Amino acid sequence: MKNYIDTSDFSKEELLDIANLGILIKANIKAGYPLNVLYHKTLGMIFEQSSTRTRVSFETAMTQLGGHAQYLAPGQIQLGGHETYYDTAKVLSRLVDILMARVQKHESIVNLGKYCDIPVINGMSDYNHPTQEMGDLTTMLEHLPEGKRIEDCKVVFVGDCTQVCASLMMIVTKIGGHFVHFGPQGYQLNEHFQEIARKNCEISGGTFEVTDNEECLVGADFIYTDVWYGLYEAELSEEERKGIFYPKYQVDMEMMNKAGANCKFMHCLPATRGEEVTDEVMDCDRSIIFDEAENRLTAMRALLVYFMGKKDETIKICKKNLGI
Amino acid sequence: MKNYIDTSDFSKEELLDIANLGILIKANIKAGYPLNVLYHKTLGMIFEQSSTRTRVSFETAMTQLGGHAQYLAPGQIQLGGHETYYDTAKVLSRLVDILMARVQKHESIVNLGKYCDIPVINGMSDYNHPTQEMGDLTTMLEHLPEGKRIEDCKVVFVGDCTQVCASLMMIVTKIGGHFVHFGPQGYQLNEHFQEIARKNCEISGGTFEVTDNEECLVGADFIYTDVWYGLYEAELSEEERKGIFYPKYQVDMEMMNKAGANCKFMHCLPATRGEEVTDEVMDCDRSIIFDEAENRLTAMRALLVYFMGKKDETIKICKKNLGI
Amino acid sequence: MKNYIDTSDFSKEELLDIANLGILIKANIKAGYPLNVLYHKTLGMIFEQSSTRTRVSFETAMTQLGGHAQYLAPGQIQLGGHETYYDTAKVLSRLVDILMARVQKHESIVNLGKYCDIPVINGMSDYNHPTQEMGDLTTMLEHLPEGKRIEDCKVVFVGDCTQVCASLMMIVTKIGGHFVHFGPQGYQLNEHFQEIARKNCEISGGTFEVTDNEECLVGADFIYTDVWYGLYEAELSEEERKGIFYPKYQVDMEMMNKAGANCKFMHCLPATRGEEVTDEVMDCDRSIIFDEAENRLTAMRALLVYFMGKKDETIKICKKNLGI
Repeated sequence: MKNYIDTSDFSKEELLDIANLGILIKANIKAGYPLNVLYHKTLGMIFEQSSTRTRVSFETAMTQLGGHAQYLAPGQIQLGGHETYYDTAKVLSRLVDILMARVQKHESIVNLGKYCDIPVINGMSDYNHPTQEMGDLTTMLEHLPEGKRIEDCKVVFVGDCTQVCASLMMIVTKIGGHFVHFGPQGYQLNEHFQEIARKNCEISGGTFEVTDNEECLVGADFIYTDVWYGLYEAELSEEERKGIFYPKYQVDMEMMNKAGANCKFMHCLPATRGEEVTDEVMDCDRSIIFDEAENRLTAMRALLVYFMGKKDETIKICKKNLGI
Repeated sequence: MKNYIDTSDFSKEELLDIANLGILIKANIKAGYPLNVLYHKTLGMIFEQSSTRTRVSFETAMTQLGGHAQYLAPGQIQLGGHETYYDTAKVLSRLVDILMARVQKHESIVNLGKYCDIPVINGMSDYNHPTQEMGDLTTMLEHLPEGKRIEDCKVVFVGDCTQVCASLMMIVTKIGGHFVHFGPQGYQLNEHFQEIARKNCEISGGTFEVTDNEECLVGADFIYTDVWYGLYEAELSEEERKGIFYPKYQVDMEMMNKAGANCKFMHCLPATRGEEVTDEVMDCDRSIIFDEAENRLTAMRALLVYFMGKKDETIKICKKNLGI
Repeated sequence: MKNYIDTSDFSKEELLDIANLGILIKANIKAGYPLNVLYHKTLGMIFEQSSTRTRVSFETAMTQLGGHAQYLAPGQIQLGGHETYYDTAKVLSRLVDILMARVQKHESIVNLGKYCDIPVINGMSDYNHPTQEMGDLTTMLEHLPEGKRIEDCKVVFVGDCTQVCASLMMIVTKIGGHFVHFGPQGYQLNEHFQEIARKNCEISGGTFEVTDNEECLVGADFIYTDVWYGLYEAELSEEERKGIFYPKYQVDMEMMNKAGANCKFMHCLPATRGEEVTDEVMDCDRSIIFDEAENRLTAMRALLVYFMGKKDETIKICKKNLGI
């Protein structure tokens, strides 16, 4: 695959490969060894919606790899508007080395991937969020419960079925883990996503469950949540969303303890403290939210290196630097 | 000349020098040799009007040359507003190494050039578009008809007299080629521009013609067009512009064939497919529009190197790298 | 101190150390020696209010030091809004190496400094402007009257009590110089600032005075002014501000001559020529406004190096390069 648009396009082994590449590069950079594998290369970044964290992560990643990222803010490029996708894709392929885009509509990233002659990375669409998936996989690998493999882990997403919920399902079931969406009826993973989960589990040996029964929390290794107003259209008012999700789907210490003493807390951030999660959970020592935020950067470095065809070279350099 | 504001300020030899410098740097970069002749240098980019392609090309060029470009978006600097041109120019001369600006009014770029102590490049004004000229010269040099010199080429611009039309005239007549503007009366190159063409041809031995007679197409080596709503003020509605230019001035395969079997198609892009040009022409193998888009980058690298005084050093490095 | 938020947090010796570091780096760069002490490092730049000069200076500084600056424009990050300061600070600490912010409210920069695990630099708040202070200190050090130390200099700020006025007071009294605010009653340094001046002078041996008596100008080594509409809220109309400040507080040649033949003129820019200062003063050879503008860059390089913990390494490299 030339592009990173949907983790469904990749095998479990390929995705783990990328995650482990990221962990290796992270160790290399933390140890102070500069990498220059993308020396003088340019990443074009198209944002149809603004996103500070995704933009900052990609831009820092390019700098750390010896390259440069160009930020095209919302409004600076209109995809599929006046100019055809084809023409935009062909021109950008001549001017930059790799492209990422955060798009309003999933078809935009699919079309860019189809027409570009350079690698294209999906920085979130209205359908999925695969760079978040890669960062979250990395975070879970780094925080595996003692004696467990990633395939043994139970991951419970609590609350509204955002793209992050769907994406977490995709990566966990792909990798062979055990995924649960704990959310109210009407706000659960839809049939389309359940079909993907089913297919992933058939191949990977993972399991999945969609439920509003809080007993699903018992034994969770990771509890994950997201804001209650994450959907693109028909955003809910505070009163409406509290009526749907509160208090049952708020992650508090009681819920964490129901899961188990070693259960970790994850959140893609930004969080609305006091809504989907309490301050106490956000700030407790089982919360790994800032490691997770950092691993957006870890994942992006790996994706850039991998899709620019620099995996083998990078592994060699990092192993030599680290003496492993 | 310290500044690149108008190709009328340069001789044919100087302009060909810059174009050839660009072709050499392009070969060097395609061969994978990094260049660092603008190491740690900063290009300030002022855009009073947004332009994705010009901005991306300049920014990629600086990265590839070891430097960095700063993007000042529309609204971030107001030229000749509250602060005088003089003060803005003097301050920027202390903070960056070279400046480019896309301006609303030509006087803005002229004033920047006059007051700045650093080189200034015109990234398009309401009067001309000299970086496009340099890219187009490069593209024609790369796609010369077999056995012809650039001075032998006939270049027909079809349609509305945009800045790109005027700029194409300036570079073709300067270089000693044969330029035709094929457009309807009232939308043809005005007397001011015809006077420039006349003077250029006197020196260069080139020719020019402005006509609405389609026989001018016969024997064209390059047919070039631009959108029908390119003017800054009094933009035409779709209905109005079609009434003026359609179908006579739409570039279709019939027109291409009237020119000749080897005639190439050029467009500064973005295009309104189905208006000034058909899909068939855009996508045929005589269309060199994406090479042309890439040569914006080729031209900008050359201009940056040339006006930063790094021509000789760069030629030496590239020739050594390429073994020529 | 991890952060550069208020010069009151630093001793005279520390501030002079930073200024002299800047002067050394400037000499190194002017001599053409590249520095890479911030190789591959990222500066995050948050601008709640736009500011071309501060942004350009910081971005150029990072490029010259081998690193990269990310520009987050107004609207791209909302500090202390939906997401808590704490969460924003913790996430950014994972994604960039050092942070600067120009903020609406001083509490925002204080909170960023408190919660970030990385160095934080105040790029101006509604309270103070400490990078301007460092640049101005540098400029005065470079333009010391013959035979005088910085502690002997008399610095008169003329006009409205902007943040720049307050900041100039802070640095001059801290360093042991003699500061005067010459402004109309109602627009003079308030009691809070006078208290800071008093404390600074107690330690440093400097003096300060706030007055509307023009005799204060006699013997000034530096006359400094700023626009008459610099306050964030309740901006004055041209008529109102002229009613208050004109003509008594306009810096003209008569005022310069009253100060003395060697008195230099400073302005933080942009200036409203014809209001707070005449063209004649702006353009005379006693005006050091563009050196002052350049020293924003000088100061920022020093601040970045100092707060990234690279002072000693940088001094060593520069001294070796310069043979001193």
